[in-house]
Amino acid sequence: MSNETPDQGVTFKSLLFNENGKFCLPCTLYKSFQYISGTTGKSVTSPAPIQEETISKQSTALSTLPSSDLIPGSRTYVKEDPPDVNKLGSASWTFLHAVAAKYPEKPTPFQQEEMSDFLNIFSHVYPCFWCAKDFEKYIKENAPNVKSQEELSIWMCQAHNKVNKKLGKAQFNCDFWKARWKDGWDEQ
Amino acid sequence: MSNETPDQGVTFKSLLFNENGKFCLPCTLYKSFQYISGTTGKSVTSPAPIQEETISKQSTALSTLPSSDLIPGSRTYVKEDPPDVNKLGSASWTFLHAVAAKYPEKPTPFQQEEMSDFLNIFSHVYPCFWCAKDFEKYIKENAPNVKSQEELSIWMCQAHNKVNKKLGKAQFNCDFWKARWKDGWDEQ
Repeated sequence: MSNETPDQGVTFKSLLFNENGKFCLPCTLYKSFQYISGTTGKSVTSPAPIQEETISKQSTALSTLPSSDLIPGSRTYVKEDPPDVNKLGSASWTFLHAVAAKYPEKPTPFQQEEMSDFLNIFSHVYPCFWCAKDFEKYIKENAPNVKSQEELSIWMCQAHNKVNKKLGKAQFNCDFWKARWKDGWDEQ
Repeated sequence: MSNETPDQGVTFKSLLFNENGKFCLPCTLYKSFQYISGTTGKSVTSPAPIQEETISKQSTALSTLPSSDLIPGSRTYVKEDPPDVNKLGSASWTFLHAVAAKYPEKPTPFQQEEMSDFLNIFSHVYPCFWCAKDFEKYIKENAPNVKSQEELSIWMCQAHNKVNKKLGKAQFNCDFWKARWKDGWDEQ
C-alpha cells in the first residue's frame, strides 16, 4: 500500500492523523515515535525523513550480496521466494487484525455489508486452498460480527485462536485485542 | 489462517497439493522443501513435524524475556505493538501478490466479479486511511485486470510499482512476477 499522503512526499512527516483528525497508527512509522509521546499522537514533532535512511541501509546490505542473488537487471531486488504457508498466514493475520482494529466503532449498514462481503470473498481467494476452506467453514458456523470495531476485532481474535488451537499454539487472550492491534501497550 | 488440512493435524506432512492435485506452494512450509526437489512438488517425502521444533525454539527464546515483556497471563505472547505503516504495507502486499498468483488462469465470470469486488472493498477497509485513498484512486483510474491469473498478477505488480515510485523505491520488473510470487527462482 502507499505509505504516504497524496501530497506529503516520502518523509512520513504528516502521517499521524487520519481524515477526522484522529491519530492514525497504521499511517505512521514507529521510527517517528521517538519524537512523540507514546502512541497517543500528542506532542508531535516531525521526524527526519525515513526513506533516505532506509535506502542507505538497504544499499549497504545489498552491496554485500553476490549478483546471482539479485533479480536480473536489478540492483535492489533480491530473488526472494514466494511466501510459504507460515509467512502468508502471518502476513494475512496482520492485515486482518489491523483491518478489524480500524473498522468503525459505529459502522453504517453499508459498511457492515461490505465487511461481511470482504471476509466472505477472502475465504474464496485466500491462496492456501486448505486454509481457505477452513476459514470458509468457520465463517459459515460463526458469522463475522460486523456490528462494531470491538465486536469484529474480538471475532477476528477468536477466529485466529481457532487456528491456534488446531496448530497446537497457545490461545491469545482476546481481552488484549485493543493493545495488540490498535493502541499499543504503553498504558497496559 | 489455518496452516493445515482439516484432517492432517499440524505436521504439514500433506500440504503440498491443492484440490486438483497440483502443487500448492502457499499450502507448504519451506522447511519441507529440503525433502523435495525444488518447488515442483516432485519426489515428495514427508518432513518431520514442524510444530514441535517451532514450539521448542519459541520456548527457548521466550525463556530469556522478562515477564514484563509478556502479555499478562501468557507465557508465550510478547507485548507486540500494532503494525506500523511499513509492517502493514509489507504484510498487505505479500497477501495481495499471493492472492493474485493463486487466482485462476481462466476465472469464471463469478470469480472475476468477486475479485473486482474484493479489491474495491479492500480500498475502503485498508487501515491506513491515506494509503487506502491512494489505492481507491488508483483502482478508479486503472481498473483491476481480473481476466486471468497473469493479467491480475501484472496489474498488482504495476499497482505496487506506482507506490514504489511515490516512495522513491526501485521499480520491480513485472516480467518476474511468477518467479517472485508463484513458482520461485529455481529455474531462473
